[in-house]
Amino acid sequence: MFEKPLGMRDTLPFFYNQKKRARNQLSEAILSYGYSFMDTPLLEYHETVGRVSATLDQQLFKLLDQQGHSLVLRPDMTAPIARVAASQLKNAEFPLRLAYDGPVFRAQQAEGGKPAQFEQVGTELIGDHSSYADAEVIALLVESLKQAGLEDFVITVGHIGYVKSFFSDVLKDDETTMDELLNYLYRKNYVGYREAVKELSLPKEAEDSLLQLLHLRGGEEIFGMSKSLARNQSCILAVNELKQLYKLLKQYGVAQYIHFDLNLISHMNYYTGILFEGYAPNLGALLCNGGRYDQLLPTFQLNASATGFAIRVERLVEALQKHEEKDTRVAVLVDEDTHGQGIQKAKELRQQGYQVLLQHVDQIPNLQAFQQHLQKTINLTTGGESVE
Amino acid sequence: MFEKPLGMRDTLPFFYNQKKRARNQLSEAILSYGYSFMDTPLLEYHETVGRVSATLDQQLFKLLDQQGHSLVLRPDMTAPIARVAASQLKNAEFPLRLAYDGPVFRAQQAEGGKPAQFEQVGTELIGDHSSYADAEVIALLVESLKQAGLEDFVITVGHIGYVKSFFSDVLKDDETTMDELLNYLYRKNYVGYREAVKELSLPKEAEDSLLQLLHLRGGEEIFGMSKSLARNQSCILAVNELKQLYKLLKQYGVAQYIHFDLNLISHMNYYTGILFEGYAPNLGALLCNGGRYDQLLPTFQLNASATGFAIRVERLVEALQKHEEKDTRVAVLVDEDTHGQGIQKAKELRQQGYQVLLQHVDQIPNLQAFQQHLQKTINLTTGGESVE
Repeated sequence: MFEKPLGMRDTLPFFYNQKKRARNQLSEAILSYGYSFMDTPLLEYHETVGRVSATLDQQLFKLLDQQGHSLVLRPDMTAPIARVAASQLKNAEFPLRLAYDGPVFRAQQAEGGKPAQFEQVGTELIGDHSSYADAEVIALLVESLKQAGLEDFVITVGHIGYVKSFFSDVLKDDETTMDELLNYLYRKNYVGYREAVKELSLPKEAEDSLLQLLHLRGGEEIFGMSKSLARNQSCILAVNELKQLYKLLKQYGVAQYIHFDLNLISHMNYYTGILFEGYAPNLGALLCNGGRYDQLLPTFQLNASATGFAIRVERLVEALQKHEEKDTRVAVLVDEDTHGQGIQKAKELRQQGYQVLLQHVDQIPNLQAFQQHLQKTINLTTGGESVE
Repeated sequence: MFEKPLGMRDTLPFFYNQKKRARNQLSEAILSYGYSFMDTPLLEYHETVGRVSATLDQQLFKLLDQQGHSLVLRPDMTAPIARVAASQLKNAEFPLRLAYDGPVFRAQQAEGGKPAQFEQVGTELIGDHSSYADAEVIALLVESLKQAGLEDFVITVGHIGYVKSFFSDVLKDDETTMDELLNYLYRKNYVGYREAVKELSLPKEAEDSLLQLLHLRGGEEIFGMSKSLARNQSCILAVNELKQLYKLLKQYGVAQYIHFDLNLISHMNYYTGILFEGYAPNLGALLCNGGRYDQLLPTFQLNASATGFAIRVERLVEALQKHEEKDTRVAVLVDEDTHGQGIQKAKELRQQGYQVLLQHVDQIPNLQAFQQHLQKTINLTTGGESVE
């Protein structure tokens, strides 16, 4: 009678208020950068948005509508916003700065604590293919997290172009092996990666190269090593993009939040350039991520590049110091004779900014317990105002 | 490629902002009355929440999860909140004042302009079976609509107990006929009702009674006539409840928004006492509704009465005077040399409360059009600050 579907959760008032505060603060930062919030439906055609989203098919919630079409509960907001940018907004002035705040869905296979519905606040900067756009998105991400009250976090930045060009060169375009190695990196299984590389029986130089890739993590000092490991022009271009990005992030004053990691994959086939993930030390899961996805809008027949980020709101709230949430409500207790007087009293207190519940005493099963969580009780029924 | 499922709509920035303003103002009013906001998942078991909700089965969006259970997209918030009140909150101090703000779903059979997803802001007051609770809910509804900026609206109040007892008496418990007549009233088809009554070939006195029921609409002057038409003690009790309610609503100072209508049905089998609907004259559809539903919580094994309201947010926005939404964003245009300077300029302006977009000029396809919608542009690339 009281059960909920797998991975579905209720949000009780305490957590609701914590989330609301975080959402408001994120929104404020995002609005201050000139982004406009919008929303799309919770249901989309599988054909339209399900297929191009960055979510595995088995993680989609699918249903049939009454006309027999296959629908999905939106697995992310990026694909629906791309749909809108390429249709209703295609005559707006580009670059477009859009933002969102809403629930997305991932079907879960088994009870394992993973949520099947969670909330994302995010941005999309569409139609600007420069490093300036990448830098803005990362700077705004940092700004938003700080504004929400998070102090200790790291944004790890990579470049999908580097890894892919590197593999393509070392492995002579052997796609099966490339996918295998990419998949180890995607799952951050570096032990598995090492073993797989050793089993390839490649020439010593190629094997060493593949193993040295794992060292391309750290601060700006990795740019030099990344260049010397670079196998071709595409790798060099990727490093130069990261260097340019870093210069811009220093201008933004956010360099201290940035780590580089040229093993970062995030997704097998979605990002096309710079990509990033954010972590907080006391949180054992991804807090936020994003990057450049220049292939998505062309699937909607719009020739435009795009970059953006998404923050997982519930995880952000978990990572934040909990705000002491004292119940600041005031109760005005009345009976038949004092109801009119109680309305006036409640009105005065509300005008002073209090949250006031007006309550007929006869309907309270346990008066003492009822008062316990409230800031103050004004009992008008005891012949004169008694305040407790 | 760009299509959306039947009845699904995008919310573009302009409408998003109008909705956001309305939602904030409604929330403020609701919080000021001591209600706590909460949320529940978008998906529920059909078994648990789908069946007891006030929505017709054919209007439910159903899907199967990967374990083969039948799920529904929540058709309202009242049933899920009842589920939570009867489980996680059952040890909280009653009466409970809960509120919500979120999307609900109604499957549409055909393209007819009706939304399949819409947003409701509402309240539930659980565990208070007095008229004081009914009055509070209606007064808060009025307060919320006024706070959102709506001036011209009417709340029509009825009592399901009156109509049902009246029919039961006149029609000697003939349930088929009762349902038929209730259904005419539910659909507000008064012409059909009259014809159906005449075709019943009842004794003149009974027929006259049934026809006179249609006159029980108006201000407090209908209480007298309602009493003289009353057939039994239940009808009298219902009128007395309405009289008591009206007295309390006068104390709240909201009587001028109230009409009475003893033909009001709202739903065939959901409400158990006082019920109401709200209309705005320039809106051709229901704006809000609510009432007492004392049978719902017992289905969740909680012996508690309840009353509440729900406001349709998109319709409220349609009914409101549109706020002139001038784009108040400022653009700071930069190139490579002025990017650092632009960041500082943007930061200063943001601290003054401006929404500032920092944009590299090379990425703007049409500079003139880009500037057109903005409040101001500061171009740092032209050697010195040029403001337009």
